[in-house]
Amino acid sequence: MTISPQEEIHGHAAVADSGLSSFHRTIAPLTVMAQCFALLPVHGVTAPSPKALRFRWMSARVAYTIAVLFSLLFMVFFCILYILQIGGTFQDAQCMIFYGIATATYGAFLHLAGRWPRLVVQWSAVEHAQSCYGSSKSLRLKIRCITALLLAGAAIEHFLNEYNNLSFAARHANTTSGVVQQYMLRSHHHLFTYLGYSHACAVFASVAAALATFSWNFMDLFIAVTSIALTDRFRLLNRNLQAFRGKRMSAEFWKQTRERYTSLMYLTDTLNLGVSHVVLLSFGSNLYFICLQLFNSLNPLKNWYERVYFYWSFGFLLLRTATVSLSVAGINDESRLPRVLMYALPSDSYNDEVSRFQQLVTTCHVALTGLSFFSVTRTMLLTMAGTIVTYEIVLVQFSHVNT
Amino acid sequence: MTISPQEEIHGHAAVADSGLSSFHRTIAPLTVMAQCFALLPVHGVTAPSPKALRFRWMSARVAYTIAVLFSLLFMVFFCILYILQIGGTFQDAQCMIFYGIATATYGAFLHLAGRWPRLVVQWSAVEHAQSCYGSSKSLRLKIRCITALLLAGAAIEHFLNEYNNLSFAARHANTTSGVVQQYMLRSHHHLFTYLGYSHACAVFASVAAALATFSWNFMDLFIAVTSIALTDRFRLLNRNLQAFRGKRMSAEFWKQTRERYTSLMYLTDTLNLGVSHVVLLSFGSNLYFICLQLFNSLNPLKNWYERVYFYWSFGFLLLRTATVSLSVAGINDESRLPRVLMYALPSDSYNDEVSRFQQLVTTCHVALTGLSFFSVTRTMLLTMAGTIVTYEIVLVQFSHVNT
Amino acid sequence: MTISPQEEIHGHAAVADSGLSSFHRTIAPLTVMAQCFALLPVHGVTAPSPKALRFRWMSARVAYTIAVLFSLLFMVFFCILYILQIGGTFQDAQCMIFYGIATATYGAFLHLAGRWPRLVVQWSAVEHAQSCYGSSKSLRLKIRCITALLLAGAAIEHFLNEYNNLSFAARHANTTSGVVQQYMLRSHHHLFTYLGYSHACAVFASVAAALATFSWNFMDLFIAVTSIALTDRFRLLNRNLQAFRGKRMSAEFWKQTRERYTSLMYLTDTLNLGVSHVVLLSFGSNLYFICLQLFNSLNPLKNWYERVYFYWSFGFLLLRTATVSLSVAGINDESRLPRVLMYALPSDSYNDEVSRFQQLVTTCHVALTGLSFFSVTRTMLLTMAGTIVTYEIVLVQFSHVNT
Amino acid sequence: MTISPQEEIHGHAAVADSGLSSFHRTIAPLTVMAQCFALLPVHGVTAPSPKALRFRWMSARVAYTIAVLFSLLFMVFFCILYILQIGGTFQDAQCMIFYGIATATYGAFLHLAGRWPRLVVQWSAVEHAQSCYGSSKSLRLKIRCITALLLAGAAIEHFLNEYNNLSFAARHANTTSGVVQQYMLRSHHHLFTYLGYSHACAVFASVAAALATFSWNFMDLFIAVTSIALTDRFRLLNRNLQAFRGKRMSAEFWKQTRERYTSLMYLTDTLNLGVSHVVLLSFGSNLYFICLQLFNSLNPLKNWYERVYFYWSFGFLLLRTATVSLSVAGINDESRLPRVLMYALPSDSYNDEVSRFQQLVTTCHVALTGLSFFSVTRTMLLTMAGTIVTYEIVLVQFSHVNT
Repeated sequence: MTISPQEEIHGHAAVADSGLSSFHRTIAPLTVMAQCFALLPVHGVTAPSPKALRFRWMSARVAYTIAVLFSLLFMVFFCILYILQIGGTFQDAQCMIFYGIATATYGAFLHLAGRWPRLVVQWSAVEHAQSCYGSSKSLRLKIRCITALLLAGAAIEHFLNEYNNLSFAARHANTTSGVVQQYMLRSHHHLFTYLGYSHACAVFASVAAALATFSWNFMDLFIAVTSIALTDRFRLLNRNLQAFRGKRMSAEFWKQTRERYTSLMYLTDTLNLGVSHVVLLSFGSNLYFICLQLFNSLNPLKNWYERVYFYWSFGFLLLRTATVSLSVAGINDESRLPRVLMYALPSDSYNDEVSRFQQLVTTCHVALTGLSFFSVTRTMLLTMAGTIVTYEIVLVQFSHVNT
Repeated sequence: MTISPQEEIHGHAAVADSGLSSFHRTIAPLTVMAQCFALLPVHGVTAPSPKALRFRWMSARVAYTIAVLFSLLFMVFFCILYILQIGGTFQDAQCMIFYGIATATYGAFLHLAGRWPRLVVQWSAVEHAQSCYGSSKSLRLKIRCITALLLAGAAIEHFLNEYNNLSFAARHANTTSGVVQQYMLRSHHHLFTYLGYSHACAVFASVAAALATFSWNFMDLFIAVTSIALTDRFRLLNRNLQAFRGKRMSAEFWKQTRERYTSLMYLTDTLNLGVSHVVLLSFGSNLYFICLQLFNSLNPLKNWYERVYFYWSFGFLLLRTATVSLSVAGINDESRLPRVLMYALPSDSYNDEVSRFQQLVTTCHVALTGLSFFSVTRTMLLTMAGTIVTYEIVLVQFSHVNT
Repeated sequence: MTISPQEEIHGHAAVADSGLSSFHRTIAPLTVMAQCFALLPVHGVTAPSPKALRFRWMSARVAYTIAVLFSLLFMVFFCILYILQIGGTFQDAQCMIFYGIATATYGAFLHLAGRWPRLVVQWSAVEHAQSCYGSSKSLRLKIRCITALLLAGAAIEHFLNEYNNLSFAARHANTTSGVVQQYMLRSHHHLFTYLGYSHACAVFASVAAALATFSWNFMDLFIAVTSIALTDRFRLLNRNLQAFRGKRMSAEFWKQTRERYTSLMYLTDTLNLGVSHVVLLSFGSNLYFICLQLFNSLNPLKNWYERVYFYWSFGFLLLRTATVSLSVAGINDESRLPRVLMYALPSDSYNDEVSRFQQLVTTCHVALTGLSFFSVTRTMLLTMAGTIVTYEIVLVQFSHVNT
Repeated sequence: MTISPQEEIHGHAAVADSGLSSFHRTIAPLTVMAQCFALLPVHGVTAPSPKALRFRWMSARVAYTIAVLFSLLFMVFFCILYILQIGGTFQDAQCMIFYGIATATYGAFLHLAGRWPRLVVQWSAVEHAQSCYGSSKSLRLKIRCITALLLAGAAIEHFLNEYNNLSFAARHANTTSGVVQQYMLRSHHHLFTYLGYSHACAVFASVAAALATFSWNFMDLFIAVTSIALTDRFRLLNRNLQAFRGKRMSAEFWKQTRERYTSLMYLTDTLNLGVSHVVLLSFGSNLYFICLQLFNSLNPLKNWYERVYFYWSFGFLLLRTATVSLSVAGINDESRLPRVLMYALPSDSYNDEVSRFQQLVTTCHVALTGLSFFSVTRTMLLTMAGTIVTYEIVLVQFSHVNT
């Protein structure tokens, strides 16, 4: 293989900060946070090597996850009971769907946890084999920014919601304990209708709500961060291809490039097998909650804090959905770039390895999928946006008819 | 061809239980049941060899089928007459469409019967030629489970419906014979409006209704079971490919694999020519009845048994549709797997046979189709689900306008 | 090339009845009929050889066509004037759109006439070069049946409409001349509002209406017949391929097959350049009129002859649309068949010519298009059917809201 | 390379008028006009060579652009304030969206300006390398016609709008200064509600409105002209290919053709990177305003000048959208033509270069995209038209419900 001086420098730099750029280390803080909320129960996430990662059914972490899963199922059960007895509309089903999605999310992360150790080991192997491509300095910063942005936004939304509920409770109660009770009754009326109010029950409901809210936000964050890290691997390969554009490279170079591209395709495939449940849940729930918020936007809002909460939560939801969608679609965008680069190859540098690589990049389709039902590309995002706009138009027209 | 020890063992096992795993034997109980209800009128379904299968127009079975076909046409005729004279809405057309679908189903199975003997012979030839791939132990169990599940569900739904109708009749009649009469008048009013009530006519109508209900359920069951069996053939081929992944195989191995894959493609094509009418009917009717049930769900249900019946029939309809859809889409899913496996081939094992197989799996499209109008893949299922959700949204919005 | 005995017999038969099977002769009666109604103004349609075909701007036939075109434009002008002054809804625009489509149809056929001579010469050349494939006996019969069916249906619809209008007129007039006047006023009120009633004007309007109705029906018939004839060419090629399936053929055979397939592709391309305007008009107008009839179906019909007319015209419209759609889609269906046949080729018969033909049939897309906006395939027909069903659902829901 | 006499003549002609046909000179008048309205702030647009083109952040032109950008943002701010306080429907949001699109357009052209010099240099290099293809005489005429047509249409629309507003103002004011004041208050009420009326403010608002209107029209014009110029390059290449159709060409010819086609693909890619924001804005805003005008068409218009304005502005909007859509889709149409031409190649002229070119044209996808969310092809235009028709149907149905 003909290594240009520039690439050698990259290579050295890669060895120097290889510890820093590894996916295993980058994702570690996120995984630790997830485990506090009973998501992704694997051992060894803080170990220096990904080989220490283990998933065991017989462990405290898995037990914690399963306990949370059953608590959420418990909440879903009372929501369904409430709807069946009292009857419910589009809006009343929100609570059931919210806890239903949370339960499914915990299930999907449990499923992912079983595949996580092997995935991270494969990822590290790819990173090691392609260390000569160097690393992108901006990746860690980018991941930190997105993490901070999404978590801060979610925290603000959560506190605005609590303030909203508390101020409502304060207006309807005399004593301090009454405020808490009113607050709990308002936000979990489906539960207390059957069990009656008790402080233990209130604590339980609060914890369940917090976990569900966290899992809903974390799901998007996790997909976005993983996708960005994978996109970065494709970007490094493309940067390398771009550097040699127009030059005549040896067959060995093309063979190696093809093998590296193939190993990235396999990594995407492995990742997809792990997270495609999460992707389906994430896109489905975001689509549902955007439509719900559009529906809610037709109701007049009385207080300024209700208005602030509504605009914040809706704006944040749109921002989060756009972030996660574009991040995931980025894998597909970046994986298609070699296609164009290969067309520019001068005629005398054609050989069997080149044509194999060309056929590979022309025919392959690299993208995360939602359980194979859809693959996340920019075209698919336009379809999703079109669906939302159509729903909004129908809503606006109906509200004209009604008034 | 280089045969690995592991494959030889599989081969021996295959010879040992070849009788058990053959498609002809697996499908026999289903075909016998179908023939009791005048579907798939071929001779020799219980014979040990598929070569005994015969379709003759001049036979008692075909006569039975044609008699049923005309009885159902008779029912359709009275439904149309009723609608044209009394007028009908979306809901009133249900009866006509129900018997119309049943008539078309009997026609489609008659068309399939003419192609059945050749199809099963081709299937057996494929099984025999690929016996070295062994057989999957779980296939028969899987088919039995699905058969039991769908038939039990359908039976429960039928009895709940009968109970519903009988309890309605019991409230409106004094004598026992009056109950039966009321019951028949309620469920077949379009018939007795013209012919007047008679016991012979009532028996005729009951039998026709039972046959129509059976054919509607059996259609889905039959497609699901056939698809699962075909998917299994692709799975065995993929398991074999997976086993040799990364190893350097001879050109002979690739030639054989390509020929086997091609013969599976042809088998899919032959199956498709036989069942594509049934697939179109199945997907069309399921889509229609789901939309109808969603429409019905807007009406309040008075009694607890009406409610139980409604939730059961709707839930079962959704479950059945999901089962049949995912089973059929499984053929396409499984047939696409070699695509990814071929990309990972090391450079030195490339030869003409490899590139032919690679071109084959990259460009072919293997799936059952609904009379070529659509091919059943996961993407198509998402489109179908999206259509149902859109209809539900329009319904909910309109019900808001009305109230 | 290795010619099998069977093919030789076909070849001899082809020479014997080559005069009968030629596209030029088959389409002649249709073209003559078209010219009576000022469509397709070319000279030499009844000549034995297609080389006698000529299109001249300075000819009586073109003058006739242009006169009709201006008469129809005249009608459109008064329709627009009427709508702008009196105002018009969805239904009132029907007249304008009807004459607008007729005008566009005459324009599209004039455009086709300029390309017709070259197209028929190319078609004859293809027929001559592929005469060894023989001819299909059933083609002429099929074309005659479809012609008879569509023309008879259109004639019946026209007379039912006239009867309807006349019986309406008879009820509102005393004298015989009054009946005619009432009849004309009813069916062409937009014209007489401005010009006042006169017998000359009434004759003019009747002729214009008859020409517009004929062109609307002829458009579909013409596309269907041309497509069936082209599909037949592909079918003959496929029959030949099928006959040699599994046998080892020489490179010369594959080269010839590829060249023949390519010449059929070019013929489709030339045909498409000529008729794609007509295809767009045909599909667009059929879609529009189906939706309009669905809309009309919500209004109650008072008399039995109104009811008969409505059901006949709607049923015939659906039948005609299905016939023309499936005929045009047949070209695509038939052109895709070699794709599957090529996969089954035994390994030892591979050579450069085979792989060129294989690449050709795998990547080409052969279909008539509607001015490149859509290509007519079965999948596209499903989309069109889905659009109609969606419109029907919206209509039914709105009618529920209104009542 | 084998040069035919015909091509040599083309080559000479190209050298003779190379100055005239260059893209840089053709687009210059348009760019100058754009710079008067602060769009595309680059230096050297009137220089004879594209190498004189420069983009500098520190320049008067960029400062002008940024000043306009902030003025438009200022307008958007007051629109949002007005909507949030007074509340707004679908129609009231029109003003905000209009200025929002204008702001985004100025941003998109600023982004394009940074890439403009390199793009024009690349374009000139392509023109120079392919000068042997000659030039199409009709290109400049075509561009001038479209420019004149779109600008004249926009001017007429603008003056009709002003007349409308002035005549409304004249009816509500006594003095001349009062007319101006009324006129300004009517067209910019969201601004004067907060700032109070002043002449300085009125001038500012008028200039901002004129700039926004110009940028909205110019955006479409610019995309259309650039696309037509690029399409012309593909057309010249196709004309050359067509001229040698059926002849046996050297490998060198095919190599050169492939390289030229590839360089056009790269030019499209570079252009796309520059204008894809503008394309997204253009298609989005046209779709929005067409739907808005359809919505407005339901309201009755009182005066003849209101009616004239409405029909003119709507007709012009449709014409402009069709022009820009078909122009952009033309790139894709023209780039697909070699696909068909390559199939007709005689067998003995096949070689490696031919098969490379064939693979290139069969698998590549050349089109401008809207920020990768959609690529502009005829199929996509049909989808867009279908969306508009669906919206119109929903509107008409709802208006039936309301009345």
